[in-house]
Amino acid sequence: MSLVVVGSIAFDAVKTPFGERDRMLGGSAVHFSLAASFFTDVRVVGPVGNDFGEPEYDVLHARGVNTDDIERVDGGQTFFWRGRYEYDLNTAHTEDTQLGVFGDFDPKLSDASRGAETLFLANIQPDLQRRVRELCDPKLAGLDSMNLWIDTTRDSLVQTIGVVDLVFMNDAEIRMLTEEPNLVRAARKVMDMGPRVVVAKQGEYGAALFTESGFFALPAYPLETVVDPTGAGDSFAGGFLGYLSAQGEDAASDESELRRAMTYGSTLASFNVEEFGTERVGRLSREEIDERFNEFRSITAIEGIPTG
Amino acid sequence: MSLVVVGSIAFDAVKTPFGERDRMLGGSAVHFSLAASFFTDVRVVGPVGNDFGEPEYDVLHARGVNTDDIERVDGGQTFFWRGRYEYDLNTAHTEDTQLGVFGDFDPKLSDASRGAETLFLANIQPDLQRRVRELCDPKLAGLDSMNLWIDTTRDSLVQTIGVVDLVFMNDAEIRMLTEEPNLVRAARKVMDMGPRVVVAKQGEYGAALFTESGFFALPAYPLETVVDPTGAGDSFAGGFLGYLSAQGEDAASDESELRRAMTYGSTLASFNVEEFGTERVGRLSREEIDERFNEFRSITAIEGIPTG
Repeated sequence: MSLVVVGSIAFDAVKTPFGERDRMLGGSAVHFSLAASFFTDVRVVGPVGNDFGEPEYDVLHARGVNTDDIERVDGGQTFFWRGRYEYDLNTAHTEDTQLGVFGDFDPKLSDASRGAETLFLANIQPDLQRRVRELCDPKLAGLDSMNLWIDTTRDSLVQTIGVVDLVFMNDAEIRMLTEEPNLVRAARKVMDMGPRVVVAKQGEYGAALFTESGFFALPAYPLETVVDPTGAGDSFAGGFLGYLSAQGEDAASDESELRRAMTYGSTLASFNVEEFGTERVGRLSREEIDERFNEFRSITAIEGIPTG
Repeated sequence: MSLVVVGSIAFDAVKTPFGERDRMLGGSAVHFSLAASFFTDVRVVGPVGNDFGEPEYDVLHARGVNTDDIERVDGGQTFFWRGRYEYDLNTAHTEDTQLGVFGDFDPKLSDASRGAETLFLANIQPDLQRRVRELCDPKLAGLDSMNLWIDTTRDSLVQTIGVVDLVFMNDAEIRMLTEEPNLVRAARKVMDMGPRVVVAKQGEYGAALFTESGFFALPAYPLETVVDPTGAGDSFAGGFLGYLSAQGEDAASDESELRRAMTYGSTLASFNVEEFGTERVGRLSREEIDERFNEFRSITAIEGIPTG
């Protein structure tokens, strides 16, 4: 199985209570790709400028990510984001955004990318997401989005949600999109738009999975130090869809597989936040991932009611 | 095993998006007692005024709660609280508080109450909590508290935390008390004050359990309609300590039993919020409780990594 992700490739400047980085590899498509690469073949699609060089490609290639569809725009600058986190690490405060080549991004996909079995539309403008969706014919498509698109292009976002199978969004954004404060009802309203799976990302509280007949929730892994939350949601989606994609066509209808996907997603997100940017996931091993997967099983297990 | 709870007995006026009640039985000790009564013998201690009558006693007696230590103050008024919840139901907005007889509450406990194996100090002034703790000689003691006491009587609260085994507090209050934004570290700081078990209540996100060597987290039960959150935290603590108390002396050192206690606590809290005040828990059955306990096991279960 192969998986293609379309989204931002970026340089990030991040300051948190635990330190700062002036310029490091980031972007939704990058965090997603690295996380998914532990499970399946990944192709990444997105624009970069002349400032994107060998050190950045090396991070992706070291994890076997196919970068043939990274579009390098001559004379352009790679998307740049500067943000900081306060001591509670839950909210990113954006200090600077320079769209660069991302401002004119018109996704072009090779035949290999169009033919991937799984497609992830990372958080970009929903018209663009839909255009990519129409270029491809995946067996499984998912998307992420954000409050900006709910505010500015809600109708387009709803249309795009209508042509994917899985939606990954923050719980607050699911509520905002549906104007429904109760998350169970809100997730059902999103399913009514088309998707059969809705994943509500809940930050430090973990994530919840909604399907037509099922519900599952998983806490976040209990970390004593969260160094940099940037990219956690994309690493989550990458671990989730990477695992699911590798299980074959029917996995997205299998509640047990979806729960394992949630657990792998949470595992990748938890490693992502342990260090800045891609530093931790970049040197992660599958053994470490499976070990933490098993820890997730252990910290959530409830034995039955004692008899007698 | 028997369990005694000391706390408020109240009349509540509550308005939520789903309706309102002008005057209904409430108070932390009441919600706790009713929840705990499904598992063990419960005695409730707290003051009431002349306005507290047979209908209120009947709710407690119907669940077998011993009310001998309810102190009826002649000429006094029962504690009264009026609050409303906005559409998101997460925050209570207090509109009126009339302490009544609760303002001069000086807990007196019968020998039977002093001799109870388990003691719960519901959310009252920490000096009072500590005085009650010193009157008793329980095998297991727990407490709840709130931001008001952290703000006004922090030193006393820390002393009181030092003489109990279990602490139940909202996660935001655990962070506030310890001035530590990371919940794992914050819970450890509370354990350093004395208790061996810290339970962080997380509202709609569920609850997390911290012990010296263990961590466990449980989502809240996914309800499409939360009618009235008042008393959810006390019902949680009641289900938790009621179950644990019934398992005998060593249960509080047994991670499996603590996890079952978390699950019973969450179960009782979930029923509590389905209707106003004590309405739902008042007519609950043990069969319904065990059924939802099993649903909690089911919505959190993760199968292992497939081999081959």
